[in-house]
Amino acid sequence: MGEIIKIGLLGLGTVGRGVYCLLADNAENIQHKTGAHLQTARILVRDPRKERRLKINPAILTGNYADIVDDPEIDIVVEVMCGIHPALDYTLQALTRGKSVVTANKNMVAIHGRELFEAAEEGHADIFFEGSVGGGIPIIRPLKQCLAANRIQKIMGIINGTTNYILTEMTLEGKSFAHALEEARAKGYAEADPTADIEGLDAAYKLTILASIAFNSRIMLEDIYVEGISRITERDIAYAKELGYIVKLLAIAKEAKEGMEARVHPAFIPSGHPLASVNGVFNAIFVQGDAVGDTMFYGRGAGEMPTASAVVSDVMDAARNRLHQVTDFIGCTCYEQKPVLPTGLAESKYYLRLLVADQPGVLASIAYAFGDKEVSLSSVIQKNTDTRRAEIVMVTHRVREQNLQDALRIIEKLSVVDEVCAVIRVEGEEV
Amino acid sequence: MGEIIKIGLLGLGTVGRGVYCLLADNAENIQHKTGAHLQTARILVRDPRKERRLKINPAILTGNYADIVDDPEIDIVVEVMCGIHPALDYTLQALTRGKSVVTANKNMVAIHGRELFEAAEEGHADIFFEGSVGGGIPIIRPLKQCLAANRIQKIMGIINGTTNYILTEMTLEGKSFAHALEEARAKGYAEADPTADIEGLDAAYKLTILASIAFNSRIMLEDIYVEGISRITERDIAYAKELGYIVKLLAIAKEAKEGMEARVHPAFIPSGHPLASVNGVFNAIFVQGDAVGDTMFYGRGAGEMPTASAVVSDVMDAARNRLHQVTDFIGCTCYEQKPVLPTGLAESKYYLRLLVADQPGVLASIAYAFGDKEVSLSSVIQKNTDTRRAEIVMVTHRVREQNLQDALRIIEKLSVVDEVCAVIRVEGEEV
Repeated sequence: MGEIIKIGLLGLGTVGRGVYCLLADNAENIQHKTGAHLQTARILVRDPRKERRLKINPAILTGNYADIVDDPEIDIVVEVMCGIHPALDYTLQALTRGKSVVTANKNMVAIHGRELFEAAEEGHADIFFEGSVGGGIPIIRPLKQCLAANRIQKIMGIINGTTNYILTEMTLEGKSFAHALEEARAKGYAEADPTADIEGLDAAYKLTILASIAFNSRIMLEDIYVEGISRITERDIAYAKELGYIVKLLAIAKEAKEGMEARVHPAFIPSGHPLASVNGVFNAIFVQGDAVGDTMFYGRGAGEMPTASAVVSDVMDAARNRLHQVTDFIGCTCYEQKPVLPTGLAESKYYLRLLVADQPGVLASIAYAFGDKEVSLSSVIQKNTDTRRAEIVMVTHRVREQNLQDALRIIEKLSVVDEVCAVIRVEGEEV
Repeated sequence: MGEIIKIGLLGLGTVGRGVYCLLADNAENIQHKTGAHLQTARILVRDPRKERRLKINPAILTGNYADIVDDPEIDIVVEVMCGIHPALDYTLQALTRGKSVVTANKNMVAIHGRELFEAAEEGHADIFFEGSVGGGIPIIRPLKQCLAANRIQKIMGIINGTTNYILTEMTLEGKSFAHALEEARAKGYAEADPTADIEGLDAAYKLTILASIAFNSRIMLEDIYVEGISRITERDIAYAKELGYIVKLLAIAKEAKEGMEARVHPAFIPSGHPLASVNGVFNAIFVQGDAVGDTMFYGRGAGEMPTASAVVSDVMDAARNRLHQVTDFIGCTCYEQKPVLPTGLAESKYYLRLLVADQPGVLASIAYAFGDKEVSLSSVIQKNTDTRRAEIVMVTHRVREQNLQDALRIIEKLSVVDEVCAVIRVEGEEV
């Protein structure tokens, strides 16, 4: 038990502080479980002389990354910086020099996964990234190991806390999108510029990682159809409830006839679906495998300590591997190349909300346009909004997206149609 | 990729068939992921000449366990027999001879965990048992690895499918216990003798395994307070709903001031708790850690293919370790010795249902008895059942169990009290 494994921390922001504290607070248990003392030996910060609230020996702070990456005594590097550069450069240098790296940097892993695995192989080192998706929720290792015997058929996740908080407030408290967003900002759940969260990009980065592992095929960010929640209105949320659904921003990857689908978009899911009751900033990832059936992994998707939980647990694995002088036996698992289908070929059910003139024959002309493109409807609700206009809400049966878009293009041009206000997919009904 | 790893199967019952089929059906992916072909080389069955629906080479069937345990060519033994004997003997022999063993035998692991780990260490072999709890749900490895950085504070699980099916039918369909049990039998969810499931013993075995890992301290079956669901009535289910709760059979282990609590019993949980919507034969394990906060793992808790998913994934890990000539770095993690508190010292909220005489002063005398033992009440509902009797439903504040029992002993003897019909704990309100 006398052995010491030295850790170098790149970054001391929110997650970095969490990692530092967790390694210190649970040091005794961590030593019992790994067989070594994990010592935070060096920390890269922007300004080593800045006052900090953390009790920390100033001598271990440095402004020069080489003090960590070039230090032969440092075994494991924890990369918890922001953004891809210079994090990627430092990480690749560390790996090729034989240091194992643990990161929670989803953008870096999503875009540069292949390079990271190659550098790790070259340096006979580990690259672990459990914290990059779903905060503290164990999902990367379960997919790579515990569910490895399965052919994964589908992944469907709520993997962005900001949007889930906003949608939850809209659903449970009847707030508007703008009001809920403002509140999320006030509580620190949304960044000053929330675009990446709101527009689904954050979820798309994470889906890139999850789908690549689940389907053994490298999915690129540009393969993923991405649509955010900024156009979701209180009316749609209310109609969802009326129809027995809940609105969630879902990241979906599933096997299709000739390849796979990968998309991030708001969706109606049945109110009894396990994902429907995942509220607030919580995340959950629903995984369907050919043997295991339906499983779900739930927890806090972000934050200092939940993410630190994943990072430090990864560090412990890297440390065990060091002690036994091996690296992880499961490196890159993308041994197949599956095409991602263009969204036009994907099939879904759809919820549609249209504003139309309140006069005889309107529904007939809309229904005709749908029928002509082989879009069949499973339910229709018509409500008058004022004396001249009516709101029509429809749910389709499963339909190929291209057909729906073709029909909508014709419907939008009908003189009796004021506006197609909402087009939202319906998911999760197979369960 | 040319390497072959030979598997010996002990047993060809439900799970054994699932393992055999999964190894065959997903052989290509399994080979890609492990780097070796996993070949089912030998299968122990009671009668090798029996007709089987499985397409299987009769030459690999044997009635003699030594053909597997003594065969130096067999690397990994999968133990999927029923009961502890002779499974334990075969497993110990296999381990000490250096064969890694994967088992889904919860009773064996719960009672003989220590011996299994010792034999594995002696034989430099792996003992894996992901399938022993929660069917295909990844929970053992997540606790041992992905959440390893945490001090686990609480585990609360629905880990018996039979009882969850019965309680779900009682809750959603208003069925009686007897009717729901009968239906569970008809659907194959309950065994001919359902006692071990119904009375909570099956869940207690599984809790022994989960709690020992989560709290790094070996919990024995006899340490666990066990109470089943056979006394749960439709009235209690209805009152639960009225009060905003759902009734579930929970397996709970949590840290306490001077040790830990471990118990299996029916409980009221708030209808918004993540466990409340786990229905039918599904299982879910809620885990609270000091860093990660609240997490939950959900899926099918039993059955041929879900359990085979866990077993074959374990086999793949054992195979990777063989190929790299190492064994798992995480063996027995019970490095502490925490006392399990007697239930009398545990604190809970309680739901109580009493049948009393419908006359003035009854409530006062009951309330006096509770107050005298420092049991304070948070809500009281009184309903007349007929002209002479009334039903009183109470929910207490948190109270030490001993105090509640003392008060109930006095209340039962009051001449105005006909019967204390139900005493059920209320859990999960901290979330």
